[in-house]
Amino acid sequence: MKMNEGVEWALHSCVNLCWIPGRPVTAKKLAAFYELPTAYLNKQLQALTRAGIMSSTSGPKGGFQLARRPEEITLLDVVVAIDGPDDAFRCTEIAKDAPNGDPAVDYRKTCLVGSSMRRAELVYRRELAARTVADIVADVEQNFPETATSTRDWFVAQTS
Amino acid sequence: MKMNEGVEWALHSCVNLCWIPGRPVTAKKLAAFYELPTAYLNKQLQALTRAGIMSSTSGPKGGFQLARRPEEITLLDVVVAIDGPDDAFRCTEIAKDAPNGDPAVDYRKTCLVGSSMRRAELVYRRELAARTVADIVADVEQNFPETATSTRDWFVAQTS
Repeated sequence: MKMNEGVEWALHSCVNLCWIPGRPVTAKKLAAFYELPTAYLNKQLQALTRAGIMSSTSGPKGGFQLARRPEEITLLDVVVAIDGPDDAFRCTEIAKDAPNGDPAVDYRKTCLVGSSMRRAELVYRRELAARTVADIVADVEQNFPETATSTRDWFVAQTS
Repeated sequence: MKMNEGVEWALHSCVNLCWIPGRPVTAKKLAAFYELPTAYLNKQLQALTRAGIMSSTSGPKGGFQLARRPEEITLLDVVVAIDGPDDAFRCTEIAKDAPNGDPAVDYRKTCLVGSSMRRAELVYRRELAARTVADIVADVEQNFPETATSTRDWFVAQTS
């Protein structure tokens, strides 16, 4: 299984926006920072906006900003916004077609193969929900003290 | 992200083989039990065999059996055999292309976005590794006491 690579782009863009508060940034600039294709990053930024993670304003000073405090944006929020809400493992109820299967049973609720897989997905999601964009920002600032300033300086220097 | 649906088929087939010990079962019969396409299930059974989870014998009495005790087959073993070993989130090192990036750094090791995502995948894998086919079999036998017998009877009654 493979997660949408837009999750990586989206998380990095959320982190970068933390260092440029109060200043909307265009998709073009957010993409140029990593040499990413603007149109495709823009699609991810729109998804984040629909999910209430970013807000977008139009006009000459328009662009994207975080719509919530970084402490209130979890990794799970970003993953669900970009990659969708579904579990990786999906019960297709093959047990229903077995000779000893019961067509009236909802095997998505009763099948013990499915519930075993779901238990693992739940711990995964709980872990993603326990970590926020603010946690990543704090870790970066502690481990790479120059990153915040050099990132902000680059974005502020961009005029178009 | 979506896991290969063969994981569901493979886990159910492992569970069923626990109830037919010492009797190799053909891909055709394992598939017929759930009305699955034989060729595609066979592909999954071959992957399980390459992973040392099943063994396969040819000839008129040939078929698939578990190659290890059910206590020694974890859900992670089956997921990796069918869906592959890669993490769902893959760091493509976009930080390397940033203006403040360092081409000499291996960002798969240092990037704090990637390590945050990896931490969640590790708890997911740990959970999958903590649960075995034997655990599922025990749960089924406790919750649905007739399943083991009715499954075995069906397979034993198949002559072709």
